[in-house]
Amino acid sequence: MEEELGSEQSLEILRGMSFGRLACARGGQPYIVPINFAVDDHYLYGFSMMGKKIAWMRANPLVCVEADQVISSHQWTSIVVSGKYEELPDTPEWQGVRTSALRFLPVKNKWWEPWSTTVLQRGAHRPLTPLFYRIHIVEISGRRAIPDSHTRTRDRVEPGVLQKILKSFRPEPTTQDR
Amino acid sequence: MEEELGSEQSLEILRGMSFGRLACARGGQPYIVPINFAVDDHYLYGFSMMGKKIAWMRANPLVCVEADQVISSHQWTSIVVSGKYEELPDTPEWQGVRTSALRFLPVKNKWWEPWSTTVLQRGAHRPLTPLFYRIHIVEISGRRAIPDSHTRTRDRVEPGVLQKILKSFRPEPTTQDR
Repeated sequence: MEEELGSEQSLEILRGMSFGRLACARGGQPYIVPINFAVDDHYLYGFSMMGKKIAWMRANPLVCVEADQVISSHQWTSIVVSGKYEELPDTPEWQGVRTSALRFLPVKNKWWEPWSTTVLQRGAHRPLTPLFYRIHIVEISGRRAIPDSHTRTRDRVEPGVLQKILKSFRPEPTTQDR
Repeated sequence: MEEELGSEQSLEILRGMSFGRLACARGGQPYIVPINFAVDDHYLYGFSMMGKKIAWMRANPLVCVEADQVISSHQWTSIVVSGKYEELPDTPEWQGVRTSALRFLPVKNKWWEPWSTTVLQRGAHRPLTPLFYRIHIVEISGRRAIPDSHTRTRDRVEPGVLQKILKSFRPEPTTQDR
């Protein structure tokens, strides 16, 4: 069975996650990158090198973050956040926010380091200045699939529907029996 | 070490994958959903129920698909496709494309079924008509991190950089020693 999760429950699940994908968009073209993050009640926090995603988010701060736990194709949870990108620059007026945000970052487990390695691009190393940012959580929702033989039988697409679609593709009826 | 992959190599890796995330966008707001897919030389193919992502992609066909293999935070591969959504409707003029596309879909492993379950939304079941679509691969790129103690030492962010950032947050210098 697949069910939708409320915002409270979705946030609770997201708090236990630290890896996901962030999408930003420019001129209607979305772009996805894997990110590590930490979560409090209103924000996701992360570090990033300067690059395409930062340039795009500076131009358009509307983003989406998706994080999931996939145990199997019948057992998974997916949380989706619609949010707004905010940079936390290393300037005196942002020190308070940066200090407070750091409480949510797992210092011992320096998860952002691997994502901060330099990229060898056309033989040149890209600059290594990590930026600190947060995503203001504007909307959060979730979906979950739970294996349940009783409800699955009732809730799955009727087998006939897909069989009919597949049959309509196949010129040789014997292919199906192989 | 982290390195960028060429389009040929990225496509080769993507061919071995069947699960990823698709982002579409509306009015500058991106939206991510997990998808199952099959790949040929020019397209990704998938099935989907009618819903938010289909409505958005009909309005704006520009999409991004990301698929990754994360073994650890030091060992991962991420492939990113910028593409264009195309629906493959069940009409006579699309039969040829649908039939040919099905060759790339693993029929025995009916991976699309779990994602086709009905959603219980406010007590009502949503319609169960699966749509067949493809994503025209306009651009494909990849990034990969390989654990390599020799190059990692050279390529990682200098430890001093992150230490300096972390130090600037911390009012009590003893916190670091705990």
